[in-house]
Amino acid sequence: MIEKLIENLNAKKSKTGSKASPVVISSRIRLARNLKDYVFPNRANFTQRCDILSKVEAALEGDSKFKKGFFYKIGDLSQLEKRLLVERHLISRELCEKESGSGVFISSDHSCSVMINEEDHMRIQFLKNGFNLNALWKIVNQFDDLMDSRLPYAYSKDYGYLTACPTNLGTGLRASVMMHLPGLTISENIDKVIRASNQLGLAVRGLFGEGSEASGHIYQISNQQTLGESEGDILARLGGVLKNILEHELNARYKYIEDHKAQLFDKIGRSYGVLRNAHIMNSDEAMNHLSFMRMAVDLGLFEEEFRGLIDYLFMEIQPGHIQYPESDVSVEFRDIKRAEILRNNFQKLPLVNFDNFSEQF
Amino acid sequence: MIEKLIENLNAKKSKTGSKASPVVISSRIRLARNLKDYVFPNRANFTQRCDILSKVEAALEGDSKFKKGFFYKIGDLSQLEKRLLVERHLISRELCEKESGSGVFISSDHSCSVMINEEDHMRIQFLKNGFNLNALWKIVNQFDDLMDSRLPYAYSKDYGYLTACPTNLGTGLRASVMMHLPGLTISENIDKVIRASNQLGLAVRGLFGEGSEASGHIYQISNQQTLGESEGDILARLGGVLKNILEHELNARYKYIEDHKAQLFDKIGRSYGVLRNAHIMNSDEAMNHLSFMRMAVDLGLFEEEFRGLIDYLFMEIQPGHIQYPESDVSVEFRDIKRAEILRNNFQKLPLVNFDNFSEQF
Repeated sequence: MIEKLIENLNAKKSKTGSKASPVVISSRIRLARNLKDYVFPNRANFTQRCDILSKVEAALEGDSKFKKGFFYKIGDLSQLEKRLLVERHLISRELCEKESGSGVFISSDHSCSVMINEEDHMRIQFLKNGFNLNALWKIVNQFDDLMDSRLPYAYSKDYGYLTACPTNLGTGLRASVMMHLPGLTISENIDKVIRASNQLGLAVRGLFGEGSEASGHIYQISNQQTLGESEGDILARLGGVLKNILEHELNARYKYIEDHKAQLFDKIGRSYGVLRNAHIMNSDEAMNHLSFMRMAVDLGLFEEEFRGLIDYLFMEIQPGHIQYPESDVSVEFRDIKRAEILRNNFQKLPLVNFDNFSEQF
Repeated sequence: MIEKLIENLNAKKSKTGSKASPVVISSRIRLARNLKDYVFPNRANFTQRCDILSKVEAALEGDSKFKKGFFYKIGDLSQLEKRLLVERHLISRELCEKESGSGVFISSDHSCSVMINEEDHMRIQFLKNGFNLNALWKIVNQFDDLMDSRLPYAYSKDYGYLTACPTNLGTGLRASVMMHLPGLTISENIDKVIRASNQLGLAVRGLFGEGSEASGHIYQISNQQTLGESEGDILARLGGVLKNILEHELNARYKYIEDHKAQLFDKIGRSYGVLRNAHIMNSDEAMNHLSFMRMAVDLGLFEEEFRGLIDYLFMEIQPGHIQYPESDVSVEFRDIKRAEILRNNFQKLPLVNFDNFSEQF
């Protein structure tokens, strides 16, 4: 079902990588929107859901982003295909659970997706590499205005945009930034940062959202509040905290290098050696090794051009990606194939000699 | 004190290596001998011990093996120097505990050492790479005859050679072979082999004798009985069992490769990657990685010429060797220096590409 999308994604891998930056992997903004005069998806019957689906489809088809993009009904996707789209952050785990009457639009440059009849009628998401909240908000806002002109949004003067769950009421906006925080993690300061972020009204989650683990030292940090502040205020507050976390992460790294240079070189060296030579590897281990490789690029131990490849591998070694397009394979098969992909990539990737490098630190 | 010996040992490292063989690392025969009319060392007073020392010294000086060799009084050696000689298997841990009146002669080719006033007046040891019990016995026997003609041995027609401990009575002979048994270890058959060997009257110990651990999957296997059998019978029986163990080890490897090829390649690959890239490593970890490298040579994954280097590194990464000649360094310093030595060696050592190699198995 999704062969063309995969082909399209793979063709873009180098492009995506080249825009990557240290610490902040990507930024994302999503809006929860619902249509007036329709009950929320969890209350809607099949006919109503299909009706919503076709209304949204009609509205999107006029937009250049989606004209050449992809549309899938969730019921038509296999388990593996859904898993793969989740790993690409193009759909949510929740959407996978939905049966008939739900679907997703994905733009041809896969920077944008619209889930239909997930928790809300529409979940509009825009994604960009690096720290890009303001630029992203401009695009999201334009797109939202366009949809607003084509679809009758459920909106209240008192509450703002109405949503299925009150936690999204008001702006319906959730902005999240995916941050790579190995410095705070290995220096054991990450819990402090999470607690402080929570107190400032931000949620800190693992790579795949709520309840997922922060494998690869990757964390998603997002606003928890959607009501009582303007979109601009939400983004400004989030951006401020994120800049703070970024600074803490860099400080943690410098401090760690100063106090534990051999330990850091050891971690990076071992990860590199194992990625380059192992024959069996599960995804958690791979994520943690790749995390040290990403940090090695930040430290100048790899050429900057390899950052894109490493970010691409973070995705490529997820179980669904490893398995695709085989429908049924064993965990062992995946672990062997994962190690092979990593070996082949890292054997082409020379590590700078630390010994010449040590003096810089 | 031992600078010249060390220099001499280092000059020979490539030679030693070139005679190395798979599975059997080295063979050793030692004889316990005592002088008539002297009490055993643990009962002798200082004057008697010095008397014995000079008698043995005079007898050895006529032998070409020792003329250009090394003699040390134990009391003159530092803790570090003693540790280093133990790591080289040139003296025993027990000799290190002795105070004045004990010593050791080491031949210039360090294939032979004579400890004086350890448990017995003399402990004569000959060491050779590979599986060499019969050839070794010829040399030991000749040397023993020579000493016998120069020194009055304590000998009884009924009991044979008299020794301080009854476990050495009779022949005074202990033959031991150092075997590298990773196949039996990873296939979890080693305990069976140890039990069977014990039942056949053989002792199985770790790398540094009694009570030491089998790090690096290296085991010392030796006869327990010295009485009631001729030297020839002891060696024949030991040799028979060892050939059996060797066969079991090779079978265990073939079976493991057949059933767990990816796992084996994974272990070897990871060990190689870590040896080549780590910056901190303790000796136990290093021994285990080197063990897989030695097996990789046996399997043809490294050039045969690297076997000598790997066997040399087994010795070179022991704590005393790492530390030498510094008298007082931290464990952390040793772990960093050890990793550096290994990194430098393995970066010159290319691993054959397993992927081209897989078809052979």
